[in-house]
Amino acid sequence: MSILLKSPVDALSEYVRQSSVSADPNFNAGVKGAREFAQARLEELGFEVNLISTPIHPIILATRGDPSWPRLVIYGHYDVQPPDPLDLWTSDPFDAVERDGRIYGRGAADNKGPQIVHMSALARVFKDIPDYPLHITYLIEGEEEIGSPSFRSFLEEHKEKLSGDMLLVSDTGSPGPDQLVVTTGLRGLCAMEVKVFGPSQDLHSGVHGGALLNPLQALMRVCSSLHDAEGKVAVPGFYDAVQSPEDWERGELAKLPITEAQYSKFLGISEFSPPPGFSALEGIRFCPTLEFNGVGGGYQGEGSKTVIPSEAFAKITCRLVPNQKSEDIAYKVKQAIIDACPSAVRVEVEIKGGGDPYVVIPPGKPGSTGKESELMKKAFSVAQDCIEECFNSEPIFLREGGSIPIIQDLKEVAGLDSLMIGLFTNEDNLHAPDESFHLGMMNRAITAFEKFFRKLV
Amino acid sequence: MSILLKSPVDALSEYVRQSSVSADPNFNAGVKGAREFAQARLEELGFEVNLISTPIHPIILATRGDPSWPRLVIYGHYDVQPPDPLDLWTSDPFDAVERDGRIYGRGAADNKGPQIVHMSALARVFKDIPDYPLHITYLIEGEEEIGSPSFRSFLEEHKEKLSGDMLLVSDTGSPGPDQLVVTTGLRGLCAMEVKVFGPSQDLHSGVHGGALLNPLQALMRVCSSLHDAEGKVAVPGFYDAVQSPEDWERGELAKLPITEAQYSKFLGISEFSPPPGFSALEGIRFCPTLEFNGVGGGYQGEGSKTVIPSEAFAKITCRLVPNQKSEDIAYKVKQAIIDACPSAVRVEVEIKGGGDPYVVIPPGKPGSTGKESELMKKAFSVAQDCIEECFNSEPIFLREGGSIPIIQDLKEVAGLDSLMIGLFTNEDNLHAPDESFHLGMMNRAITAFEKFFRKLV
Repeated sequence: MSILLKSPVDALSEYVRQSSVSADPNFNAGVKGAREFAQARLEELGFEVNLISTPIHPIILATRGDPSWPRLVIYGHYDVQPPDPLDLWTSDPFDAVERDGRIYGRGAADNKGPQIVHMSALARVFKDIPDYPLHITYLIEGEEEIGSPSFRSFLEEHKEKLSGDMLLVSDTGSPGPDQLVVTTGLRGLCAMEVKVFGPSQDLHSGVHGGALLNPLQALMRVCSSLHDAEGKVAVPGFYDAVQSPEDWERGELAKLPITEAQYSKFLGISEFSPPPGFSALEGIRFCPTLEFNGVGGGYQGEGSKTVIPSEAFAKITCRLVPNQKSEDIAYKVKQAIIDACPSAVRVEVEIKGGGDPYVVIPPGKPGSTGKESELMKKAFSVAQDCIEECFNSEPIFLREGGSIPIIQDLKEVAGLDSLMIGLFTNEDNLHAPDESFHLGMMNRAITAFEKFFRKLV
Repeated sequence: MSILLKSPVDALSEYVRQSSVSADPNFNAGVKGAREFAQARLEELGFEVNLISTPIHPIILATRGDPSWPRLVIYGHYDVQPPDPLDLWTSDPFDAVERDGRIYGRGAADNKGPQIVHMSALARVFKDIPDYPLHITYLIEGEEEIGSPSFRSFLEEHKEKLSGDMLLVSDTGSPGPDQLVVTTGLRGLCAMEVKVFGPSQDLHSGVHGGALLNPLQALMRVCSSLHDAEGKVAVPGFYDAVQSPEDWERGELAKLPITEAQYSKFLGISEFSPPPGFSALEGIRFCPTLEFNGVGGGYQGEGSKTVIPSEAFAKITCRLVPNQKSEDIAYKVKQAIIDACPSAVRVEVEIKGGGDPYVVIPPGKPGSTGKESELMKKAFSVAQDCIEECFNSEPIFLREGGSIPIIQDLKEVAGLDSLMIGLFTNEDNLHAPDESFHLGMMNRAITAFEKFFRKLV
């Protein structure tokens, strides 16, 4: 019997133990292990599994069912974020320790837990209905956490295999195991790395200090110019294409069962700093950002070292909202950095992967086109029913702050719109130490998705 | 026969191989090794050696000669800077490899080479004149590269042992082996570490970005506020006590056999950024600075990680000129940082060790008091002669950019003024990868100091 039927918890644990950090070649064995784990589960479920090679980590493409049936595509990713800072983890990030009703480990919630939910639900359905009348294409990539650099060209090449009626994704968040969100939009992303170069090597700050511009000083001046005093992004043209949220979206947001006081306590901060005119929760879902994800230069060790460093770097990502374009914003930020950099140092800006923001208006909501596929219409309605039944509350329809750039790519290239059902929560610590997945959420979600798949056909 | 007489090069190599990084407890064995090496050499030279314990690394205090003779104190330090970034070294920083007429290694020039020069010269003199009629006190500390935190209290406790007519120091720089500098002043130093704290842990920048202030953004804004657009330090009151240089000092500086073009080429920079109204070389010797020695926060590894970091840090040092006071400036900078920090994050500023600037006007130069000790007067005159004879050029009398905070302490507490003869050069890469000491400089200097010690009595 498949481990998915026997014990979804064991399946998740085994998946988490594969340390599939896509950003770091030292984890290549773990990446391979996670990929093989996912392949094996899909084969057990009766999928025909193909591996599509890319310049970095191959994409799993698997199909099941008659091509003439309604076509569902399911997306996930088998790679995870780097685990550091390691010293802040209670248990090893790849030990998959069970504690307090959770499985702890990097990737437990993002995205391995939700994948186990889908697969376990399908395992139950297929056991009853071996000829389950839906053509399902599974698409699980291994480069999501590094910005899916190979995905767009994969998509162009294989788009006919991905044609279908809709996409199902569970790689978004919900308030908790009593309240799910159906995600109606995702922020886009653009990433870049800035390097500032000064003297050809680190210099003694006494022997040379006073003659030249310190690259850290230059970098910090440049970076500081990218926000204004109120915290708004100060890059020329950054907000030009930004659309205001719809009234119904603000209304849905107000249903979120979390107060600002609870949220600030959860974050451990004394006050929020949302963009002017927005609440903290609105800032995340409706506004673009420019964040410094990592900055470094000079002496990083204990004690002091009186150097003027030779170079300094900043890793920057912007989160984008409709109708900003990733390429356009990356270019504007790069230009602002180059314009702000003093001539006494040399600056390099490398634009990394990115993706455009995505919005799907649920069928029937104000603004929907009415042109959705029959499967999509049914899926939204069935999902709402099953969530209400299993989670004892209506889902909230909300855009979210995170990014899955390939969702917009799949819409543009393969014409697929997405039903996104959020299964992880703030308490799951995504991208942070002590990431975990809530087993209560997992069990409810498996039941809900089992019902969903049964009612969908 | 002492290694100092047999081969000063071998002595230096053995000294460099003791990896005496005072900032890092992992190097404690190397610190002990270097201390024991220096002790052994002083014992061979007939010194009575005492070890004065401190909270970190003991101070070597050694004496030789009749207390009624004229009294000379010689200062050095047996500790070295951290060697990182290790990957930029051509050979291991503690292998003491000889290459192109230099010994390469951390501490080769700062300060082990110059110490070997003094000791080797004394070894030759003592061999000839066992009862060399000068009372010499050797003072070699092990905490110079971490700001000499134990020195001041050591000094207060042992000041009577340090009473004397003058101090001799070779821990400053010269243009090259054809042109020495007699150092007439040192910049002071104050050091601090700034930490900015945001959320209680690293956060996913998609899930939470837009609600809160990123600690890196706050830190960079704070740090950028510490300089104005022209590069001057923007801390209120920072320049209040600064004295302009004397005309003769600008005159001496003009004698330096280095052009700005040569210097910028050496540094590998396209343009200088001196304070307004000063040349690059003047900026180093006559102006105070505020430098960022290390800044960090967030993801430091390969690729990208979309986090909002929990905290960020900056290591800052200021170089000070007469009559700035280290404590006063540290307080002013700390206050400016606290004032500039947004309330949405928490800031901590820890003030580390420091020291006041020091100036000695050479006897006979405009501004000298005429109250110098007889030994001091003779030493300046003899030094000038010996340098001219051995280096074929008159020394230049110049303040320097570096700091040896204990020099001013020794003046204040023990009344000692200093003759400082610079033996390292820009090409020696102090505090940087591939530090080395020039063996031609070493041999000339040993000969010059041998003559100096012979003529001094």
